[in-house]
Amino acid sequence: MKRITIVGLGLIGGSVAKELDQAKVALELIGVEANPAHAQEALALGLVHKVLPLQEAVRQSDVVLLAIPVNVINKLLPELLDHLAAGAVVIDLGSTKRQLCASVKDHPKRGQYVAAHPIAGTENTGPKAAFLGLFRGKINIICEQEASSAEALATAAEIFNILGMNTTYMTPEQHDRQLAYTSHLSHVSAFMLSTTVMKKGEEEEDLFALAGSGFASAVRLAKSSPAMWAPIAEQNVEYLNQALSEYIAQLQRFQQRLQNKDIPGLFELMKEANSISPLLDKISKSHPIK
Amino acid sequence: MKRITIVGLGLIGGSVAKELDQAKVALELIGVEANPAHAQEALALGLVHKVLPLQEAVRQSDVVLLAIPVNVINKLLPELLDHLAAGAVVIDLGSTKRQLCASVKDHPKRGQYVAAHPIAGTENTGPKAAFLGLFRGKINIICEQEASSAEALATAAEIFNILGMNTTYMTPEQHDRQLAYTSHLSHVSAFMLSTTVMKKGEEEEDLFALAGSGFASAVRLAKSSPAMWAPIAEQNVEYLNQALSEYIAQLQRFQQRLQNKDIPGLFELMKEANSISPLLDKISKSHPIK
Repeated sequence: MKRITIVGLGLIGGSVAKELDQAKVALELIGVEANPAHAQEALALGLVHKVLPLQEAVRQSDVVLLAIPVNVINKLLPELLDHLAAGAVVIDLGSTKRQLCASVKDHPKRGQYVAAHPIAGTENTGPKAAFLGLFRGKINIICEQEASSAEALATAAEIFNILGMNTTYMTPEQHDRQLAYTSHLSHVSAFMLSTTVMKKGEEEEDLFALAGSGFASAVRLAKSSPAMWAPIAEQNVEYLNQALSEYIAQLQRFQQRLQNKDIPGLFELMKEANSISPLLDKISKSHPIK
Repeated sequence: MKRITIVGLGLIGGSVAKELDQAKVALELIGVEANPAHAQEALALGLVHKVLPLQEAVRQSDVVLLAIPVNVINKLLPELLDHLAAGAVVIDLGSTKRQLCASVKDHPKRGQYVAAHPIAGTENTGPKAAFLGLFRGKINIICEQEASSAEALATAAEIFNILGMNTTYMTPEQHDRQLAYTSHLSHVSAFMLSTTVMKKGEEEEDLFALAGSGFASAVRLAKSSPAMWAPIAEQNVEYLNQALSEYIAQLQRFQQRLQNKDIPGLFELMKEANSISPLLDKISKSHPIK
């Protein structure tokens, strides 16, 4: 790997850049960044050696990593493969997989693409949010590995190995269905909890003086980037819609018992919810909350 | 203060005990604990000097602190005041305030009671969850201070000072209305998010392998004790019900736009939710997430 291009120098792309730089795996790390302020920041932080326009960067790279919103990946991916050098590899790091895989299903260079999703992140955004260790010990998912060439998978393995991740494999369908529950729904829950409490805050003086760490934890994800998350919702409409319907139904079940002052019933719902504890303990060991 | 009794030796009562013990403010710290295993644990951990039955403890105490579920406080408080020595003070640390204040409104010893709510906690429970520093730098609320005697308020001030808290004052009504949004709703949101995802996990193999720190943060409060939280919901039915209705309406607003594939509309909702960021930054400075 002589030249690696990272498209998108935010939290994910920037953190990948730091790891690759530390591992000294490439002669040159090239950045592509649509936001000029972020491009400048990334250069000032030393995340990449230089910033180039997309096509120019792609043409000279052995590896292209896509860390941009999934709607932009969806749009760029076929064209990117068109311009990719023979033997080069493009790996996307997006949070949805079905539409992306479908968009290049019959592309003659499909084998040079690896559809990946490193499950890591924080609620912070931009080049300054990037840090070493973001990916360490966490899970990376590769979808439709049978459609990628052995060489492309080997290159991806080398990179995810540098990031310190453990890779698991699944279909794009399974990925999007499961992530709707374990990730996308949590973001919607936090976004709308934030809005509910903020609207109340408009009529209640000093409401927020009373907010403590519990509230902060529940709404933390409401800081997440709309530019990343609106496209994720778009590309996973069916499953997210289903997850959201189930969540609303559970909240209504709680509300029904609350309105009936059915306290043993509420106790029972909370006890049921408590059984998430061992899982949380396990996550907090492998994914310390930043 | 020669003798201080702490009723309930869980996370809150146990952490208060540790602070009072360190401050050497009392000759004797007495515990009252309904759960024999917790009583033993608390003694083994040295949280209190001895454990006594409630009435025996109350009769000999200058200060009685109540760190038990709010339904139990509600039941015990009038009787406790009946048995309280002249000049002694009882302070409750419960998460709801309206019903408690109402229950002793006309009690001849109302002046000896201080209705407080230290805004601090973690999702962990029991004597082992107690730790020094839980309260430091956080807000304590005292409700209906005009109904407490100057002496009782001075005793309470001394104790909350030892805990390192800043006290603010409000009506029980305002307290319960505001806490429904800044605390109780976050718990319901986490409890039901947990249940939604766990039910999906019954039909999806390996679902939880994909859960990361974002999910963990959003559902962290689902570990909270049903014995504490079902009574809080009960004593704050009206306001919690209202908060929950507003939250469900916001989720439906999101869902509507999602179903219409109104991506700019979703972007706008997320952007709106983002404005919680400065508040979260402020909370994370004063209430580091444990």
